[in-house]
Amino acid sequence: MKIVRIDAEADDITYGTVEPEGIRLYHGSPFFLWERSETVLPITEVKLLSPVIPTKVIAVGRNYVDHAAELGSKVPDTPAIFLKPPTTVIGPMAPIRIPRGVGEVHHEAELAIVMGRVTRNVKEEDVASHILGYTAANDVTARDLQRSDVQWTRAKGFDSFCPLGPAIDTEFDPSAGNDITCTVNGELRQSGTTADMVFGVAEIVSFVSAVMTLLPGDVILTGTPAGVGPITDGDRVEVAIEGIGVLLNPVVEM
Amino acid sequence: MKIVRIDAEADDITYGTVEPEGIRLYHGSPFFLWERSETVLPITEVKLLSPVIPTKVIAVGRNYVDHAAELGSKVPDTPAIFLKPPTTVIGPMAPIRIPRGVGEVHHEAELAIVMGRVTRNVKEEDVASHILGYTAANDVTARDLQRSDVQWTRAKGFDSFCPLGPAIDTEFDPSAGNDITCTVNGELRQSGTTADMVFGVAEIVSFVSAVMTLLPGDVILTGTPAGVGPITDGDRVEVAIEGIGVLLNPVVEM
Repeated sequence: MKIVRIDAEADDITYGTVEPEGIRLYHGSPFFLWERSETVLPITEVKLLSPVIPTKVIAVGRNYVDHAAELGSKVPDTPAIFLKPPTTVIGPMAPIRIPRGVGEVHHEAELAIVMGRVTRNVKEEDVASHILGYTAANDVTARDLQRSDVQWTRAKGFDSFCPLGPAIDTEFDPSAGNDITCTVNGELRQSGTTADMVFGVAEIVSFVSAVMTLLPGDVILTGTPAGVGPITDGDRVEVAIEGIGVLLNPVVEM
Repeated sequence: MKIVRIDAEADDITYGTVEPEGIRLYHGSPFFLWERSETVLPITEVKLLSPVIPTKVIAVGRNYVDHAAELGSKVPDTPAIFLKPPTTVIGPMAPIRIPRGVGEVHHEAELAIVMGRVTRNVKEEDVASHILGYTAANDVTARDLQRSDVQWTRAKGFDSFCPLGPAIDTEFDPSAGNDITCTVNGELRQSGTTADMVFGVAEIVSFVSAVMTLLPGDVILTGTPAGVGPITDGDRVEVAIEGIGVLLNPVVEM
């Protein structure tokens, strides 16, 4: 099942699923209780939002060997986690807004885990049942600030620096080795597979949940393959994950 | 005015104010709309909670010269910000839970800013009107993990590692140089004044709001004075800020 969140007229309808005929609307939320409605809208008529509003966005740094190497970093012994503020989250087609004067800003295509249950101290073998599904993410990073600041919070934390979407795929298998790519203005920049991750999904979720309680809708970005590079005003950035879809965002400098 | 959040029987009553006769209960929330009720409860009969549930906890590292020196760090040129997940937040008297095997864990007494409005790109001279008030915080830190990890997220991010309280003081003046202390089992460990901060409240809020939009109830910890040190199972930690009150938390290892 592919779950989307949409900008709908009716107050209690914000979620839907992708069906062959269009977007099937639901009352409620997949994180609590939801109910299928009879309404199906053509996909061209709905505006997709970020498929989830997380209370936390956790990310794993240096989780692809080739990306760690291109930044001159070692792969760590345990997942190197950091946080992006929830205010970074935007949906498909929403602009990535680069503040003037922050220096070089890079795309980072990533597979994102969407948690489905309250999760604390979960064992690796029990992780799967705590996950609702997977979506695509762009861990937008102000690379110059990342190098100069003590912590990465500013570099990773500007409003709009975490596009998510287009849908949460509940049947995605992260160990199957699906392609993950990033394309800027049609030019392929990043290419890898989800099987190349140093720490897999079960290890990551178990590790994070031993630190902080994960809540339904919380998102964990699982790292980016090699090929990160600059994006600037007017660019169109596409993160594509085989089986999930394409997350397209324009870039504006402001 | 001193605002507290309490564990009350009635569903829509969670906030109150401290009056000479006790805790005056309110309907609603000081972050949106609230209404004074006729009920006043003796302070001994209410259980205080964290005075706020933030969507974000931002913190400023190395913001007191003497503390930066004791960690062997330089004072940065701009506020060194990092994030603590909201799941770290606990209230007065709630236990700080130290997971076994994380090594040395330290107290860090801090003044916390509580935002009152949606705040983005605010100028220093306009900051005051965006702040609801101030409370006391303990930026509990797993020091060994802080040294070994790439980022501070794990060291600063365990559940219960951000006690807040006891109240939000809406009249507190951070530039007045009020005493801020941390006492463990009655022994004074940290002592400074809020006037010793390298970056003041206006600079900090303006800086952070140029990165991320601050929402009502978001909390910014403003750094800790020298004297940080270990806390262990059975300890009682008190963060006291003159004019705000005492934030007392027991420590349990588990």
